[in-house]
Amino acid sequence: MGRIWMSQVIDAIADLGRNYLERPSSKSPLKAAKRLCDDLLSDRGEASGTALARELVDRYLAMDEADQDGFIDLLASDYSYAADKLQNAASAYAQNPGDDTYRVLRNAVESPRQELLRRINMAPDGTATIVKLRERLLNRIAEAPHLKTLDTDLRHLLSSWFNRGFLQFERIEWRTPAAILEKLITYEAVHEIKGWGDLRRRLADDRRCFAFFHPALTDEPLIFVEVALTNELSGQIGPLLDTPPESSGGNPTTAIFYSISNCQTGLAGISFGNFLIKQVVDVLSQELPTIKTFSTLSPIPGFRRWLTSTPAEFRPDFVSDSDFAALSSSGTLDDADKRSEMKKLITKLCATYLTSTNSRNLPLDPVARFHLGNSASVERINWDGDLSDKRISQSAGLMVNYLYAPDQIVGNHEAFVNEGKIATSSKVRGFL
Amino acid sequence: MGRIWMSQVIDAIADLGRNYLERPSSKSPLKAAKRLCDDLLSDRGEASGTALARELVDRYLAMDEADQDGFIDLLASDYSYAADKLQNAASAYAQNPGDDTYRVLRNAVESPRQELLRRINMAPDGTATIVKLRERLLNRIAEAPHLKTLDTDLRHLLSSWFNRGFLQFERIEWRTPAAILEKLITYEAVHEIKGWGDLRRRLADDRRCFAFFHPALTDEPLIFVEVALTNELSGQIGPLLDTPPESSGGNPTTAIFYSISNCQTGLAGISFGNFLIKQVVDVLSQELPTIKTFSTLSPIPGFRRWLTSTPAEFRPDFVSDSDFAALSSSGTLDDADKRSEMKKLITKLCATYLTSTNSRNLPLDPVARFHLGNSASVERINWDGDLSDKRISQSAGLMVNYLYAPDQIVGNHEAFVNEGKIATSSKVRGFL
Amino acid sequence: MGRIWMSQVIDAIADLGRNYLERPSSKSPLKAAKRLCDDLLSDRGEASGTALARELVDRYLAMDEADQDGFIDLLASDYSYAADKLQNAASAYAQNPGDDTYRVLRNAVESPRQELLRRINMAPDGTATIVKLRERLLNRIAEAPHLKTLDTDLRHLLSSWFNRGFLQFERIEWRTPAAILEKLITYEAVHEIKGWGDLRRRLADDRRCFAFFHPALTDEPLIFVEVALTNELSGQIGPLLDTPPESSGGNPTTAIFYSISNCQTGLAGISFGNFLIKQVVDVLSQELPTIKTFSTLSPIPGFRRWLTSTPAEFRPDFVSDSDFAALSSSGTLDDADKRSEMKKLITKLCATYLTSTNSRNLPLDPVARFHLGNSASVERINWDGDLSDKRISQSAGLMVNYLYAPDQIVGNHEAFVNEGKIATSSKVRGFL
Amino acid sequence: MGRIWMSQVIDAIADLGRNYLERPSSKSPLKAAKRLCDDLLSDRGEASGTALARELVDRYLAMDEADQDGFIDLLASDYSYAADKLQNAASAYAQNPGDDTYRVLRNAVESPRQELLRRINMAPDGTATIVKLRERLLNRIAEAPHLKTLDTDLRHLLSSWFNRGFLQFERIEWRTPAAILEKLITYEAVHEIKGWGDLRRRLADDRRCFAFFHPALTDEPLIFVEVALTNELSGQIGPLLDTPPESSGGNPTTAIFYSISNCQTGLAGISFGNFLIKQVVDVLSQELPTIKTFSTLSPIPGFRRWLTSTPAEFRPDFVSDSDFAALSSSGTLDDADKRSEMKKLITKLCATYLTSTNSRNLPLDPVARFHLGNSASVERINWDGDLSDKRISQSAGLMVNYLYAPDQIVGNHEAFVNEGKIATSSKVRGFL
Repeated sequence: MGRIWMSQVIDAIADLGRNYLERPSSKSPLKAAKRLCDDLLSDRGEASGTALARELVDRYLAMDEADQDGFIDLLASDYSYAADKLQNAASAYAQNPGDDTYRVLRNAVESPRQELLRRINMAPDGTATIVKLRERLLNRIAEAPHLKTLDTDLRHLLSSWFNRGFLQFERIEWRTPAAILEKLITYEAVHEIKGWGDLRRRLADDRRCFAFFHPALTDEPLIFVEVALTNELSGQIGPLLDTPPESSGGNPTTAIFYSISNCQTGLAGISFGNFLIKQVVDVLSQELPTIKTFSTLSPIPGFRRWLTSTPAEFRPDFVSDSDFAALSSSGTLDDADKRSEMKKLITKLCATYLTSTNSRNLPLDPVARFHLGNSASVERINWDGDLSDKRISQSAGLMVNYLYAPDQIVGNHEAFVNEGKIATSSKVRGFL
Repeated sequence: MGRIWMSQVIDAIADLGRNYLERPSSKSPLKAAKRLCDDLLSDRGEASGTALARELVDRYLAMDEADQDGFIDLLASDYSYAADKLQNAASAYAQNPGDDTYRVLRNAVESPRQELLRRINMAPDGTATIVKLRERLLNRIAEAPHLKTLDTDLRHLLSSWFNRGFLQFERIEWRTPAAILEKLITYEAVHEIKGWGDLRRRLADDRRCFAFFHPALTDEPLIFVEVALTNELSGQIGPLLDTPPESSGGNPTTAIFYSISNCQTGLAGISFGNFLIKQVVDVLSQELPTIKTFSTLSPIPGFRRWLTSTPAEFRPDFVSDSDFAALSSSGTLDDADKRSEMKKLITKLCATYLTSTNSRNLPLDPVARFHLGNSASVERINWDGDLSDKRISQSAGLMVNYLYAPDQIVGNHEAFVNEGKIATSSKVRGFL
Repeated sequence: MGRIWMSQVIDAIADLGRNYLERPSSKSPLKAAKRLCDDLLSDRGEASGTALARELVDRYLAMDEADQDGFIDLLASDYSYAADKLQNAASAYAQNPGDDTYRVLRNAVESPRQELLRRINMAPDGTATIVKLRERLLNRIAEAPHLKTLDTDLRHLLSSWFNRGFLQFERIEWRTPAAILEKLITYEAVHEIKGWGDLRRRLADDRRCFAFFHPALTDEPLIFVEVALTNELSGQIGPLLDTPPESSGGNPTTAIFYSISNCQTGLAGISFGNFLIKQVVDVLSQELPTIKTFSTLSPIPGFRRWLTSTPAEFRPDFVSDSDFAALSSSGTLDDADKRSEMKKLITKLCATYLTSTNSRNLPLDPVARFHLGNSASVERINWDGDLSDKRISQSAGLMVNYLYAPDQIVGNHEAFVNEGKIATSSKVRGFL
Repeated sequence: MGRIWMSQVIDAIADLGRNYLERPSSKSPLKAAKRLCDDLLSDRGEASGTALARELVDRYLAMDEADQDGFIDLLASDYSYAADKLQNAASAYAQNPGDDTYRVLRNAVESPRQELLRRINMAPDGTATIVKLRERLLNRIAEAPHLKTLDTDLRHLLSSWFNRGFLQFERIEWRTPAAILEKLITYEAVHEIKGWGDLRRRLADDRRCFAFFHPALTDEPLIFVEVALTNELSGQIGPLLDTPPESSGGNPTTAIFYSISNCQTGLAGISFGNFLIKQVVDVLSQELPTIKTFSTLSPIPGFRRWLTSTPAEFRPDFVSDSDFAALSSSGTLDDADKRSEMKKLITKLCATYLTSTNSRNLPLDPVARFHLGNSASVERINWDGDLSDKRISQSAGLMVNYLYAPDQIVGNHEAFVNEGKIATSSKVRGFL
């Protein structure tokens, strides 16, 4: 009967402490919240166990959006470091560097809200609430520069808490709780999951799905990757998504990572994908020793924009002006036949694009940036890889395989970091 | 067959990345470790997934004690903040406070080892290794002041990671894995557990044991509390430990917290006891509504030392010089009969001791400091509470009940914090 | 990482014994199966561990339908009791009753296929295969009387194996594995579940779903019941199914069992519903003490058939011939207005139908037979309870509440069994 | 918090039905039990859900030993088949064999207590209670022939319920709940486990322990086997038990089954060992492919008794009368030096003993009977295998390795069953 009762029991455990909290009158939610924050930071916060933190979290979650934004502003304004105190401490250290002045300076640098957030985190849903709060904040940050330091504090805290060492790696299967599976449907960002039937197919015997979870975020994946087990390097996403499951058996030789999605907007800037892909390579190598090739099948989201927006002087010189005019003219790349006529040139341009870097020596394409920075190599460019409207408009339907070859990761990485060199297969080099 | 395979599988998953690590030659373990630290902090650290962190952790764990100490010294010396850079940043901020100078200052204040430790934590046993490392450090810190700033960094990191919001509250029972139960025997700090038979009795139906765990420390309790369910306020530890289990049934009215032990020396200074006791009060109230009284049965470790070492001028004036001489003379308090003759005076002295505070308004006795600071009250002083040699020599055999009354916690706490007032029962007040 | 690996590991454990089995050549699947059956029943069966059983199960599952039927016939013909041996044993006992002749007789009565089935059950999917085999058999039994004794053996075995003592009672929630939830959609027999959205609503906070499982049938519910928590005795199924979830909270006073479905055709004749409802009453009483009323909202599948097919002489005398003609004429009961005009009479007839019994003193209506035999009482008849086409045609849209009052179960049952008396509420009695 | 609450919750769920049971007055426990049995077998039994069964089980468990025996006698006498009814049915079938007479006969043969036991089994601890009841019965059966038919019924039922298909195979490790581990200490029948330290060593990395469980017997192993992973065929039990754990690593080549113990006396006659050993061979082959040799290290409990009690005419002719006198004389075999002088002869005698069979073609030694019947072969006889007093007195300290070679199991078995041939290694054959 095990798993039945847990949620009930946990809910039922009224935190007795709360019965005896002196509750702020609720006239103004923000004033009440401020008072709870002050109490939480005081000695009273320690004495109350988790009662004050629970109360504050419940109140925040019950606020309307305007008040939630107000609460975020409050954190930004009232619980920041004290500028004057910090100035004194900085001055003191500058004049007289040493352990004592360092300690004072160090304390003065840290905003009280860091401790406040750590105490809020003690509430049962504390971590989830803080992640949601940052999600709200990020929505506004472009227009609200006064939130930047608060965001720095939040990211600092969250990246410490969501350290790889605390993440749980799990396989997602059709036996996984539905409450988790529905999150996949919601969060899938690369190739939309069209309902439970489609989801089920993606979890069949010839597929794998893995995710990271954090112990404090129940039933909430942080990131997940979908993998197809095949016998060749897949170049087209359509067949891969639509083929019915193989009668199991067969010894797959190839693992195709065809989708990887981050789930928590509130954790933006904290990187999990790197770890996830490498762990999946390890796990599949162990479970299915016949698999020797690990590769993505990836979109190239920036290709067409680059093609048309690159100033003439930076344009590859193998493109004639007339070709360029054709490629830029509305409709050429959207038309299968016209595309086909220019296949060789387009492919060569794509190879050029994928291996081009910006002023900071990073690949131009954002997906390339992720995988190449992650020590993969550009293995193959696939014509007609994804004929959906979205991909036609992004990349003229081309897709690319990035290869994760365990024995080349270190070498690729050194070359990439030290020399800005992008690893490519001989086939791709052939285009260049 | 579920639980069989996990450990094997996890061990078996060789981190493929490691096969391709360029490993530092192992001539000098410290040099090798230093090189791994540098790599881990560089871009290479990100590319390697968790491989570098694993390698470093394995090497640290394989070092002899001298090298482990050497590694700690290395962390203290080579990965601390850069004093000159910090001086410049402090200077800049002092002269021109603002967001930009703040950001530079903030970065300069944080020692690189904080990031290093966060990366070490990515290894499978990373967290446990860091906790053990701090344990070593704390052993030396009294004689090694140069380790203090490193310790501050470690405590900062660990108290963020071991936030109450990440702890798992679990009941310990006879069904708990033996691998965990043996830890209780090892860690019990108040009343020694004399083997598995004794342990089993402490987990019988009329007892409870609860602990906090952290998801990253498998099978390692952080703190645990042992509780006896009774029908009266227990005053003697002997019978409580020795009585065979009640034929279950019976509706207990009282929960006696008779032992609470911290388990991880490496987490010293991070407080869990406060939360644990309050959660147990909540949980037992829910599970067994007949329980109305929650109380400890606690030792008074500092009583006799206080009695004999208090300078004459601070001595309570109700003690005559001759009585004092008798109490101080070797043997009086160690002798049951002689003790008995002075019972009234000794009890009164004990009440005085328990309610006395030091210059910072904190109770003199360390156990009193914990429970009273945690909002309990002094309920009853028990003559012949614990007649073991250890307790006779510490407290002339007296024990005390601290009461946790949910409806008085807030009030007690306010009085304690604001006025330094210690909550006492009328009975105890009668002695004063 | 726990739950990832189990299925793989279990599959991977090749039963080594199988590698060394002398496998029957597969020319004729039935001949091969027969040889495996003989081996399994011989000493060889014991020596092979589970290898022979696995082989046989795999072969049966791989057969086409005709061969599966052939295998069932084989069980019926070749592994039945030996009539001549039994005749001798019966004769011997009849002439000379005693322990020795009894033992011989007892052995002679049991068909060898009982032992054969017990040995087949040793295979990993043995139990599931036997349940499926009986499902096939039951499809044919009406036209195949020679399978009756085999069916008796199967039911005997299965009802021993699926004894209540071996069933696992579990709550089904949205956290339940999707692999189980999809079975609910498949097996729901009373009110169709229209996709995952509908299912999710039925598992919301103001609903409950419970099921029995058997340890040998993974992810396969045997029976499940759906319950709505409300504040009144629901009389209409439409609103109950369609209302969006209550914002939780609220203290429900009433549990409405609105659907109960058996899942395994192959377990027909083995009763679980009785136990399930009573266990749910116990569990909900414990979890939600505010619930005081436990009632079904049930269809009345036989009402209209009874109305029109009852011979004139058995017709209730309060129905005039003209009324009867109206009720029987096509269209009257299908028309809401016409129905409405005769509401009082129809309701009275329904009350009469529900409390009428057949020659064996059992209620006429099959659903009534189940609940009343299970000690419930007829609480209320609901006009316009279910306006779906199906229910209009079965029961003119009427539904009924059967009440499960824990304190009346024994009394109701005695009255029902001893006197054939059906328990009814005063309101229902008022109609009679 | 998961695992905390289950036992409480399950206990707390008072079976509401029980509150309304008319309880037999408890004047005579046996009369009360009889009345509960009658109710349970009647329709009332079905209506009560599991309430009556619980009541009966609780009462049985609360009885003193005399009453428990009385209850067993009651089952034997009052709930047996009806001899007269059976005689009629047998007669009818003998005269007129056919489906109808068969069905009547079949029902008449089965004692009502089979159904009664199946209903008792519905109580929460029903299965465990029935197993314990049979244990009591077996203690008396030698002097109580009237219990034999009851025992036949019990064994029939239990062997159906404890079918291999329902057993759960689990690895026992140091992480296993202490409540299970203490059972190993209790049940170990071959080499006593001397406390928790000894147990822990037997669960170290270079050891394995596996058990069968049944879902209805919580925390109760049915049988377990202890295995040492080594690099040679162990011949001495002492070093094997005493050596401290290998620093893990090392790739073991050999698995030594050094102890196998049945745990439930009440399941005597139901064989699990055969399945367990074969499953362990499969599992270890899978987990540790370096292991190629699977062998026991077994005692020879009947050797000395055979040596001294075999009548002269059956004595092997290679033993001279004087040798025989020496071997029989008190003290020769108990003395290490004297034993040593006759080593060759003793070993030859032992080989002869191990390969000798009785009139039913079964090995004389009970342990040999088990392993050879289970298709193992006699691999090696070990001098000074076990120098404990017990083994000296049983087998002059000799032990034997039985080899389980997956590729010889079928062959060994055929030879054993068809020709009574015992498989031996060439080394052992050399002695013969």
